[in-house]
Amino acid sequence: MRVLITGVDGYLGWSLSLYLAARGHEVAGIDDYSRRAWVGEMGSQSAIPIASMADRLLAYRQHQGQNLRFYRGDLTDYNFVLNAYKSFRPEAVVFLGEMPSAPYSMLDVQHAVYTQTNNVMGTLVTLYAMREVVPDCHLVKLGTMGEYGTPDIDIPEGYFDIEFRGRPAHMMFPRKAGSWYHQSKVHDTHNVEMACRLWGLRSTDVMQGVVYGTYIDEMGEDERLRTRFDFDQCFGTAINRFCAQAVIGLPLTPYGKGHQKRGFLPLRDSMQCLGLCVENPPEPGEYRVFNQFEDVYDITELAERVKTVASDFQLDVRIQPMQNPRLEAESHYYNPDHQKLLDLGFEPTRDMDAELRRVFQDLLLHRERIEARKEAQFPDIRWDGSRRKLDYL
Amino acid sequence: MRVLITGVDGYLGWSLSLYLAARGHEVAGIDDYSRRAWVGEMGSQSAIPIASMADRLLAYRQHQGQNLRFYRGDLTDYNFVLNAYKSFRPEAVVFLGEMPSAPYSMLDVQHAVYTQTNNVMGTLVTLYAMREVVPDCHLVKLGTMGEYGTPDIDIPEGYFDIEFRGRPAHMMFPRKAGSWYHQSKVHDTHNVEMACRLWGLRSTDVMQGVVYGTYIDEMGEDERLRTRFDFDQCFGTAINRFCAQAVIGLPLTPYGKGHQKRGFLPLRDSMQCLGLCVENPPEPGEYRVFNQFEDVYDITELAERVKTVASDFQLDVRIQPMQNPRLEAESHYYNPDHQKLLDLGFEPTRDMDAELRRVFQDLLLHRERIEARKEAQFPDIRWDGSRRKLDYL
Repeated sequence: MRVLITGVDGYLGWSLSLYLAARGHEVAGIDDYSRRAWVGEMGSQSAIPIASMADRLLAYRQHQGQNLRFYRGDLTDYNFVLNAYKSFRPEAVVFLGEMPSAPYSMLDVQHAVYTQTNNVMGTLVTLYAMREVVPDCHLVKLGTMGEYGTPDIDIPEGYFDIEFRGRPAHMMFPRKAGSWYHQSKVHDTHNVEMACRLWGLRSTDVMQGVVYGTYIDEMGEDERLRTRFDFDQCFGTAINRFCAQAVIGLPLTPYGKGHQKRGFLPLRDSMQCLGLCVENPPEPGEYRVFNQFEDVYDITELAERVKTVASDFQLDVRIQPMQNPRLEAESHYYNPDHQKLLDLGFEPTRDMDAELRRVFQDLLLHRERIEARKEAQFPDIRWDGSRRKLDYL
Repeated sequence: MRVLITGVDGYLGWSLSLYLAARGHEVAGIDDYSRRAWVGEMGSQSAIPIASMADRLLAYRQHQGQNLRFYRGDLTDYNFVLNAYKSFRPEAVVFLGEMPSAPYSMLDVQHAVYTQTNNVMGTLVTLYAMREVVPDCHLVKLGTMGEYGTPDIDIPEGYFDIEFRGRPAHMMFPRKAGSWYHQSKVHDTHNVEMACRLWGLRSTDVMQGVVYGTYIDEMGEDERLRTRFDFDQCFGTAINRFCAQAVIGLPLTPYGKGHQKRGFLPLRDSMQCLGLCVENPPEPGEYRVFNQFEDVYDITELAERVKTVASDFQLDVRIQPMQNPRLEAESHYYNPDHQKLLDLGFEPTRDMDAELRRVFQDLLLHRERIEARKEAQFPDIRWDGSRRKLDYL
């Protein structure tokens, strides 16, 4: 299948290009290297060295026996996007080309506006290009479990059946996000649903949990095929940041009470799920929502887990809670469904410890790169709009 | 009270500045004359001549005995907006400064992107300016009943109480809009709710029905105080367009089956409601939603009503359905609540015929202005993305 990946230079995008090629798909990618720039802006770098796109493309051809068709440009530029669609004529698009950080979006008004403009308009432009060039194409859109927030009831996969004043209804589950970034995904959800309803486009909207890990088998031994791994306050996600903290002797820092619950999944399982989405398209006009994660964990449980695995590597790790820069529930009900991908054949690897061991093996090789950007790990972006270093509790 | 009106040069904005001044409030306004430009772009003009802002301000001072503090600029420009807030320090903001047309937003990708960028970022910038300068200020945000779409159950005012799998919840009612414009209001809803929840701002989000009419008493006899009246395919709303059609001998054109139901209210009642919102602010941190309309009508009933009143003016009017350029339910359940404004003291005028007579009196004086822009009344913007004149059915 011809699959276009937007954000192909990113953490998930680059990995997915390898995963899909290995499964026999023809892959194209769009990027403008924004992720490298954002992480640089935060004073950080990928812990694992990543090759330039030129070197990535060369290695890709050597190992995959095919070229990755690469288009460099801005996803909010309609003429650029339209031309890419006309040239590649994708059968599926995996849309990973958004700014993915909640703290970055909360930095100040410029970053808030940038995040929502970049993400929402990039998706809107894509809907138009698809309608114009490839109306049968399947849009696999990356959303986030964070769109739902933490309601005090079960979270279904996108829709639920309710009764109100004696009349039944099948409705979209209300979204309640907690940052401008998460809101941008909520806005996407509404825009994409409408494009399917009005224009007959088809889309799988993936409410993804938090992804962690450094490696998928398709990367092999060539270092030019490795994907990035961020640990700064904006682009490092929970487990990845804990591992980086452990490697350089910093305490692991759950925020606040530390009983926030979230769904998590390893990088290899994220690839498996996105592959299943691509290979099992919905009907024309169908908008469907998958909750994509493996298990729900309490954030302090996770820190304990990381600490235990770290001890196998002679790393002496402390857990020390930190002020919560976010305004969020720190102890709450959380019970989201995640059945639809299992029904499509998703087989979770379910071995978090093995995954964490691989992360530590990789990061220990690059301890000095994390050490050199230690400052970028201390959060100072607060949801109340101020910017002051957080204290340990 | 110090009240800032964004979009003060528009249909509602200008009227509201007069209404609030007459009630003793101190009024400031922001505009960049976009509405005049959009209507010009559609090849049309206001049926009722409107004065330049300079003349409006002069007349305002003569009749109201106070100056309207006017700031000319773009609501998505943070520095401009911030300075306006620092200079005026509003106690309430009535946010009418958005692009208000569904067809205009559906014209093409550029207009879709423009609509969502202008509306959503204008609101987002405002939330930041409020937080920075006047965190106690009350944001009266103009939404639309169209955010809800036409679900097959009652529509509450913003929130509803449900049970899901045995657990109760008080949740935001799911939105299901039918154009990029309506979606921009849905996005605003989510952004504004979050700003109240996270930052303690306060807002009344007004889900307004379709407004019609030409006149409020506060305009008196000075023609420089009149507000605009649009009849083109984009900026003319249902009843106003029907009246303009009647005046120049065109058939009234319900779309499709013509049984779309919507909530309507006259201009004077919209002013009364917005005034009640301003004078009855919510608590700090509270986000509340009001459904603002008077009665629900079937669009063909409305055409009949306009036809009957038109006959008093010796206008011989036909009703002829037209192809529906929109993709929407043409016959559906519709039962939205509208109690909260009544609880605050809203007294609907409830005399649509009197309102329509006033519209005809005004429009008959300017028949040649409507005639001169006759072409702009024939819709050709279709929801499927094509642009072809619609046929009569």
